[in-house]
Amino acid sequence: MKENRYTLIKRDGRARRGRLDTVHGTVETPVFMNVGTVGAIKGGVSTEDLKEIGCQIQLSNTYHLHVRTGDELIKKLGGLHRFMVWDRPILTDSGGFQVFSLASLRKIKEEGVTFASHIDGHRIFMGPEESMRIQSNLGSTIAMAFDECPDARSERDYVLSSVQRTERWLKRCKEELDRLNSLPDTINKEQMLFGINQGAVFDDIRIEDADLITDMDLDGYAIGGLAVGETHEEMYHILDVTIPHLPQDKPIYLMGVGTPVNIVEAVYRGVDFFDCVYPSRNARHGQLYTHQGKFNIKNAKYAEDMSPIEEGCGCPACRSYSKAYIRHLIKAEEMLGLRLCVLHNLWFYNHLMEEIREAIDEDRFASFRDEIISAYSECP
Amino acid sequence: MKENRYTLIKRDGRARRGRLDTVHGTVETPVFMNVGTVGAIKGGVSTEDLKEIGCQIQLSNTYHLHVRTGDELIKKLGGLHRFMVWDRPILTDSGGFQVFSLASLRKIKEEGVTFASHIDGHRIFMGPEESMRIQSNLGSTIAMAFDECPDARSERDYVLSSVQRTERWLKRCKEELDRLNSLPDTINKEQMLFGINQGAVFDDIRIEDADLITDMDLDGYAIGGLAVGETHEEMYHILDVTIPHLPQDKPIYLMGVGTPVNIVEAVYRGVDFFDCVYPSRNARHGQLYTHQGKFNIKNAKYAEDMSPIEEGCGCPACRSYSKAYIRHLIKAEEMLGLRLCVLHNLWFYNHLMEEIREAIDEDRFASFRDEIISAYSECP
Repeated sequence: MKENRYTLIKRDGRARRGRLDTVHGTVETPVFMNVGTVGAIKGGVSTEDLKEIGCQIQLSNTYHLHVRTGDELIKKLGGLHRFMVWDRPILTDSGGFQVFSLASLRKIKEEGVTFASHIDGHRIFMGPEESMRIQSNLGSTIAMAFDECPDARSERDYVLSSVQRTERWLKRCKEELDRLNSLPDTINKEQMLFGINQGAVFDDIRIEDADLITDMDLDGYAIGGLAVGETHEEMYHILDVTIPHLPQDKPIYLMGVGTPVNIVEAVYRGVDFFDCVYPSRNARHGQLYTHQGKFNIKNAKYAEDMSPIEEGCGCPACRSYSKAYIRHLIKAEEMLGLRLCVLHNLWFYNHLMEEIREAIDEDRFASFRDEIISAYSECP
Repeated sequence: MKENRYTLIKRDGRARRGRLDTVHGTVETPVFMNVGTVGAIKGGVSTEDLKEIGCQIQLSNTYHLHVRTGDELIKKLGGLHRFMVWDRPILTDSGGFQVFSLASLRKIKEEGVTFASHIDGHRIFMGPEESMRIQSNLGSTIAMAFDECPDARSERDYVLSSVQRTERWLKRCKEELDRLNSLPDTINKEQMLFGINQGAVFDDIRIEDADLITDMDLDGYAIGGLAVGETHEEMYHILDVTIPHLPQDKPIYLMGVGTPVNIVEAVYRGVDFFDCVYPSRNARHGQLYTHQGKFNIKNAKYAEDMSPIEEGCGCPACRSYSKAYIRHLIKAEEMLGLRLCVLHNLWFYNHLMEEIREAIDEDRFASFRDEIISAYSECP
């Protein structure tokens, strides 16, 4: 049995305060992973910016880096950490989600998936072994298992057979990553593997799968296939029934989630890791997060507002600039406007997690959760 | 006679080392003004970035700020310095160049120009008084006179009548700005006025105009209507014949110029101020400046090049990132790539000026000029 790098520090109800020690440093959980799709955060955000806004860990996309520039070249150049100039942890996704959502002409077989690159249409095959090799080439801190993410509204029969195939793929992922980690020229020989629980909105499929993958003694466990079309209530219900069947001494990651309310609700149910494109994607549309809810900076009422996005916020946008100026930049489609909005939103998310950790440390997470839910009660 | 804020510190041949003291601080010349069209530098460059890359003075566009957000609102919010959060000097152009190049349906009369906004097509009138009022509302450090910039290939008769009208406009600009500077609610009551010499490539028109505007005792003098279609040799010739007819105790500004070679050639002929969109525009196309000439980062040969854009460069891009990574970002159209390229190119331009100033201080400008000309001899 390998070393468990996760430490559960304390609980406040079901909410967990933990710590994941990695070869690239320690991650304090609950944590938000900042999404850098092709090896950079959208909005012109640099390594220095990320450290300033409190980013502990980045998420990079295996599919995007494989089809553009290429994982073999990145390995040759010393791996993704060196390439991106980021010395803290990186989690790479498996590529599966993009293969199933972005690529065209895909064909799923037991071996893996054949698909056409969204860049130039050339045919690519990716299965569990290929995904592990790509992620090993990138040398990320945490590799994600290669899975299929069935639509939340899929038929039960399809979901069951998909989950069973994903379970077989997970075994192959583990074997392949163990092999890769033992090779002399592997960049990160301590690369961790997180398995992914699937099962759409079917409690029994989720539970059975959680029990099965728990037995595989992985470094961490993700819950995938949520926030893809089901209601928030269905999502919270799946967390309620699934998390008790995942090992409590390992980190739990809810993939692709979510709004501030989704995050406090999931932390409340025991989730440790999050990632989501909302802070950067919403910034592009002028949607800004605050502790009083979110608002759109393009609204005419901010045209003469010389106050910062949020009073008391220490982000690079709020430290210097007014709503009126940022609104002017966004309306004029000036890149600085987007950049300031992205920096604010990422600061908000990273600091929301810090506030969550403090609230758990101080046994007041329930009331903190209520505050966030109340602030966002009128937001979509 | 009003106070002269320019000090000529020393000469090295015709090259001048000077200093312009303004209400927003001192500008060491020769200087490059960083172009922030709509109140921000293209490429997501913030005030902090500008200070880091050595920007002494920004140029903002009167036309763009008038048609978008509006100078009256900016005045109400405390002026452009407060709006943009920039406490160093700002030069605003007159709006004339954009009126004549961007706007459609324009009609020139003695009073001024009627044109249609490029944003929404609404009809706007701008003459000398309107330009001064807009620039006074913005509260820039230096206002530029409202001029017509005739095409370099215009007929002599047209150029002569255009220059004479621009001279009449200049008198009106001066009277209006004097009036505005005396009003109690003017933001910058010490706003300076630079006149603009025109005359296309006709020596005698340029010289006669230079003599006439010299007599008007302005705060500075610009040479406009160059780098708009004539050859480099014609441009240098116009500088050779015109600059001796401009006052030697005032700053001289060559508008919209240019390449590193253009800049050393113009400094050699006595120019103090420059502005140009090349560093940011070329960055968008992956064209990067170095002391060994310029190159395109998209070239395949940089795909595996882990060295910085220029060895020894202290810019935020070169300090951390490799050519291989920046090339990857530019190819993937990631905003961080553009931002790093813009920061590098602006650093290069601002530091080129610093090197020029040092060379003049040390009486070795002629050899520095030769180095730059030689490095760029094979560049277009």
